[in-house]
Amino acid sequence: MKLLLYIKFLGTAYAGYQVQKNGNTVQAELNAATEALLGYPCDIVGCSRTDSGVHANEFCCTVSRKGEPSLETTLPIERFPRAIGCLLPDDISVTRAEWVEDSFHPRYDVRYKEYIYRIHAAPEKDPFLVGRAYHDRLPIDDEGFRKMQRAAEDLVGEHDFTAFMAAGSKVTSTVRCVKYARLEREESLITFRVAADGFLYNMVRIMAGTLIDVAHGKIGEDEIPAILRSRDRTRAGFTAAPCGLYLNRVVY
Amino acid sequence: MKLLLYIKFLGTAYAGYQVQKNGNTVQAELNAATEALLGYPCDIVGCSRTDSGVHANEFCCTVSRKGEPSLETTLPIERFPRAIGCLLPDDISVTRAEWVEDSFHPRYDVRYKEYIYRIHAAPEKDPFLVGRAYHDRLPIDDEGFRKMQRAAEDLVGEHDFTAFMAAGSKVTSTVRCVKYARLEREESLITFRVAADGFLYNMVRIMAGTLIDVAHGKIGEDEIPAILRSRDRTRAGFTAAPCGLYLNRVVY
Repeated sequence: MKLLLYIKFLGTAYAGYQVQKNGNTVQAELNAATEALLGYPCDIVGCSRTDSGVHANEFCCTVSRKGEPSLETTLPIERFPRAIGCLLPDDISVTRAEWVEDSFHPRYDVRYKEYIYRIHAAPEKDPFLVGRAYHDRLPIDDEGFRKMQRAAEDLVGEHDFTAFMAAGSKVTSTVRCVKYARLEREESLITFRVAADGFLYNMVRIMAGTLIDVAHGKIGEDEIPAILRSRDRTRAGFTAAPCGLYLNRVVY
Repeated sequence: MKLLLYIKFLGTAYAGYQVQKNGNTVQAELNAATEALLGYPCDIVGCSRTDSGVHANEFCCTVSRKGEPSLETTLPIERFPRAIGCLLPDDISVTRAEWVEDSFHPRYDVRYKEYIYRIHAAPEKDPFLVGRAYHDRLPIDDEGFRKMQRAAEDLVGEHDFTAFMAAGSKVTSTVRCVKYARLEREESLITFRVAADGFLYNMVRIMAGTLIDVAHGKIGEDEIPAILRSRDRTRAGFTAAPCGLYLNRVVY
């Protein structure tokens, strides 16, 4: 059996999830914490890569003894969140731990993932949202919000999302199935919520940038189908900043 | 006329609002920003002092030319939030600006102020709430929450709040009138909301600590009237950490 951890992190201080040569990462912190607890190095495998500054309300990773398929310990499973959590910095926490089969893979076994992208549309910055939402100085009125909602509907379903992928990314298939894509609003804070069986590189950030462009009339509310068909990155909107992006839910 | 600014700040990086010999303060940042904008030093007078690490969703201060009762400028009033805001660090923003009479005093003219105190009651820390709520590892169940609500009711009204004031504080009168004191809950996040015509030193933090003690049965839910009558600081609960406290509204 190996350990499956559900974690939560504020990504501001990290060069993303995955271990990098330059810059601290969430994975490096998990490596250090699990080794400190268990007394030997571990393999930590995450459910996805995340960019520098991206956050997670829910992120999953497995822990096994380095070079082995499993982990042996007498520590009861319910003790892991606290035991690892207190060895982690304040911006990472462990919310849940479970035993999974050795064959379980935290990335390939994902049924779907949900991301949220938060947009703070207001003339002045909000100190409590700096680094936690994308700040758009142009207010988005009811009509702009309705246009975003209208455009988001066309992202749902199975499509070739090449137009919504960072140029130059290499993947076997660019077809993904979006389960839902919706917008919520609470005063000046807009949340874009999207779930899919998988995401291409920068896909959610390009979707968010495109919807912001739709709100401001730079892209038409009915243009999404044509953009998808074009498979042309330059037809979609800008890549919205990483600070607004949160991996929100991972479903196996 | 002098300028009345409504500001918002994340207090984590500051040694409170008021200028200090050691440590940076919100007032020092406002001094620098207004002088950079107007070209001469100003007197900045705040609506209250706040402790190190305390936040504000709404805080008010007046700006006048140093040593003078007023401010002269040709800059239109609606330009001030952006003009001062862009000279301030990311953790302070100006939400509104108004002209007020020279005789206006941002502290003495307050009709009432509302504070909130946020309590995150959960076994594991939440990276998004670190420094923004008090973390209580002991969960507070429905019964504990009901007890807090019951106890908070007894804080309302005109009372001598000596038992809820930091020992050794010097004030002319320890009588204050609490307009309302209520608790709200959203999952593991509890918000204590209290408004009064004025607050003694550490009053909200001691109220919050007392209510947390009530939730955990250390203080009885009906003990508040006796604690108030005792005028004895040692009868009330602990002084809850500054990071959970927010000045939320200032009403003139």
